[in-house]
Amino acid sequence: MSTAGQVIRCKAAVAWESGKPLSIEEVEVAPPQKDEVRIKILFTSLCHTDVYFWDAKGQNPLFPRILGHEAGGIVESVGEGVTDLKPGDHVLPIFTGECKECPHCLSEESNMCDLLRINTDRGEMINDGKSRFSINGKPIYHFLGTSTFSEYTVVHVGQVAKINPEAPLDKVCVLSCGMSTGFGATVNVAKPKKGQSVAIFGLGAVGLAAAEGARVSGASRIIGVDLNPSRFELAKNFGVTEFVNPKDHNKPVQEVIAEMTGGGVDRSVECTGSIQAMMSAFECVHDGWGVAVLVGVPNKDDAFKTHPVNLLNERTLKGTFFGNYKPRTDIPAVVERYMNKELELDKFITHSVPFSEINKAFEYMLAGEGLRCVIRMDA
Amino acid sequence: MSTAGQVIRCKAAVAWESGKPLSIEEVEVAPPQKDEVRIKILFTSLCHTDVYFWDAKGQNPLFPRILGHEAGGIVESVGEGVTDLKPGDHVLPIFTGECKECPHCLSEESNMCDLLRINTDRGEMINDGKSRFSINGKPIYHFLGTSTFSEYTVVHVGQVAKINPEAPLDKVCVLSCGMSTGFGATVNVAKPKKGQSVAIFGLGAVGLAAAEGARVSGASRIIGVDLNPSRFELAKNFGVTEFVNPKDHNKPVQEVIAEMTGGGVDRSVECTGSIQAMMSAFECVHDGWGVAVLVGVPNKDDAFKTHPVNLLNERTLKGTFFGNYKPRTDIPAVVERYMNKELELDKFITHSVPFSEINKAFEYMLAGEGLRCVIRMDA
Ligand SMILES: NC(=O)c1ccc[n+]([C@@H]2O[C@H](COP(=O)([O-])OP(=O)(O)OC[C@H]3O[C@@H](n4cnc5c(N)ncnc54)[C@H](O)[C@@H]3O)[C@@H](O)[C@H]2O)c1
Ligand SMILES: NC(=O)c1ccc[n+]([C@@H]2O[C@H](COP(=O)([O-])OP(=O)(O)OC[C@H]3O[C@@H](n4cnc5c(N)ncnc54)[C@H](O)[C@@H]3O)[C@@H](O)[C@H]2O)c1
Ligand SMILES: [Zn+2]
Ligand SMILES: [Zn+2]
Ligand SMILES: [Zn+2]
Ligand SMILES: [Zn+2]
Repeated sequence: MSTAGQVIRCKAAVAWESGKPLSIEEVEVAPPQKDEVRIKILFTSLCHTDVYFWDAKGQNPLFPRILGHEAGGIVESVGEGVTDLKPGDHVLPIFTGECKECPHCLSEESNMCDLLRINTDRGEMINDGKSRFSINGKPIYHFLGTSTFSEYTVVHVGQVAKINPEAPLDKVCVLSCGMSTGFGATVNVAKPKKGQSVAIFGLGAVGLAAAEGARVSGASRIIGVDLNPSRFELAKNFGVTEFVNPKDHNKPVQEVIAEMTGGGVDRSVECTGSIQAMMSAFECVHDGWGVAVLVGVPNKDDAFKTHPVNLLNERTLKGTFFGNYKPRTDIPAVVERYMNKELELDKFITHSVPFSEINKAFEYMLAGEGLRCVIRMDA
Repeated sequence: MSTAGQVIRCKAAVAWESGKPLSIEEVEVAPPQKDEVRIKILFTSLCHTDVYFWDAKGQNPLFPRILGHEAGGIVESVGEGVTDLKPGDHVLPIFTGECKECPHCLSEESNMCDLLRINTDRGEMINDGKSRFSINGKPIYHFLGTSTFSEYTVVHVGQVAKINPEAPLDKVCVLSCGMSTGFGATVNVAKPKKGQSVAIFGLGAVGLAAAEGARVSGASRIIGVDLNPSRFELAKNFGVTEFVNPKDHNKPVQEVIAEMTGGGVDRSVECTGSIQAMMSAFECVHDGWGVAVLVGVPNKDDAFKTHPVNLLNERTLKGTFFGNYKPRTDIPAVVERYMNKELELDKFITHSVPFSEINKAFEYMLAGEGLRCVIRMDA
């Protein structure tokens, strides 16, 4: 019996207030409206951004809310006007969208869609400004337009990537955010040539995905930089060949790297969020041809500072958002790179828990344990 | 009778001390040594950099010195080991070189040769650390390895571009420095696509050459920004379609430009040397795809500052040196663009004086009159 057009009652993990464990509740999920899709989530993983907005320190607190934005699922039903997705399609919901009509979507270079660009403050769907989730008629806020910590969720069609149905959703779900962000920062933006050297600042999940991009690009040296030496052991599995801890040196890390490399690395990718690391990542690239790419999300009051001669000496500085991938156009091909065994994802998935134990995923992340914890919705 | 291997006695304009008019003297020019070329200069033009080092404020004073670095001439004789130039070749001496062997010369992207990169403090030839110029046996310092304010000069072969002998040297001499710097900044580095909008900060000779690059690239809008409104009239001949004087607005010029263009220009090129203009030039480009290129030479203590979110929103910031042209490999093709009437140069040449009146060229530049004054050596 089809559920299309009906309210679905299912389980969701609701964040009732900041910093308190999520509680699994029965929620009502309204049918998808115009340009919306209702998705049965099979696997979802936890990313730092979920923890930031759960913690809500320095963020606009919006509760009760259903968090979650890295996931894989199957389309249950589609709303009016949706033509390129149908029930049964395998999909990844993405926290930022692609309307395919705005100047950004029409530009080859940008993925910063005017209509569906990430909006962390929005808690409702854009079609009617209302939530599709409720408990006893009381609305529950959405998160990033994805809210994947629910057995069913409603997502704007512009935020849904249709992927190869043979791809294992318990693996490729991590491509919804962090892994694509880091991997794309290297392969789409830094673009190291075969044999070039790459420095990666920050060896968290995003930085290691950037290192994976460097490995896939055939980098000759991948220099990992982190303040936390416990990251170095793990990073060896990600092709990182050398390590620098800025704390071990009494000169700036950019000078250490310049000495190691005869003038600087060919490419650097910053994945820390630290303004100090951003400036070092820029200044450690070689003059004449070096390219530095910023990925980390800085604090509101941070200022990036450098002497302009560092630029005039023909260095390039760029930033990227979601690895410059357009979610609908480009992510299916990233899934294919995994299917072709070019891109490795399994090593990023260090933990797995059933949905009933979702709070354990938060505990692992808060303890800095591992990289990604996949949450199994059917368990 | 050949002068090869002989000392040549000829006229040169010597700067004896900072800020004092040059005086035309008879000098001895020694024959070219290993990897050197002696050139008969036919035309030379005056660039700001000559004036800076003549004025020598905030620069290492090095006198007596023969200034000059924008010029066109004919090879008189070549030193040992020089195989790709011969007497009679038409050439442009260039203030920065290309050894063809160092990592920069071997890189497709860089023109910052390790051996022959611009060195403003050096007053001698690198082969023996001595000068080729003397008066009564007393050495006179070289400038930028070019010293073109002399009927004959000796230049390292790596700093000599061999050009089409049909090219009029009284015109293409300006390609030795400023025009190539500005033109290349746009066509090689900013690379606007046909129909895109370009903002040019600073409408001096370099900025107008950058505007010429935008015109040749088919830019739809060329927005000129200058603090000096008297620049705007001249700039109309260079395809600049709109003007903004930051002084006419009580908000930052980047906001004015964002309003004029629906979010920012596609490309910007900064040709002022003002750190404020550099930061505005970066922040006025559109998010998602905007590229800003810095050309101006800043003060020693300047710091470029911006909020990193301006980068994360997918803007690119680059700097360039000599328009990213490799002097020997690339400049001959720029001369061809002039010969094909693609690139216009004549409009940059606003004055011309005989060699005996070279100090007038300094007066025009100090008064801010015109763009380039060509000095005729045979007159
Ligand atoms: N996680 C995502 O999906 C995602 C998506 C887009 C952007 N980002 C941003 O990318 C950045 C990295 O994300 P993550 O999940 O990998 O974070 P993470 O906290 O797991 O990793 C960051 C690493 O950077 C290191 N670090 C901090 N300051 C440093 C410094 N000054 N020098 C060297 N190393 C330093 C830390 O020790 C840590 O190992 C964050 O700013 C995040 O907001 C993340
Ligand atoms: N001249 C060359 O051959 C050459 C070569 C390489 C680099 N450069 C550098 O390029 C820059 C430009 O050279 P130029 O010869 O055209 O100089 P110029 O002095 O003729 O022109 C600079 C222009 O910038 C304007 N300006 C200054 N501050 C400004 C601001 N804050 N906002 C807007 N406009 C501003 C000035 O009014 C002036 O019209 C210099 O920094 C120079 O060192 C020059
Ligand atoms: Zn769009
Ligand atoms: Zn995320
Ligand atoms: Zn070289
Ligand atoms: Zn010059």
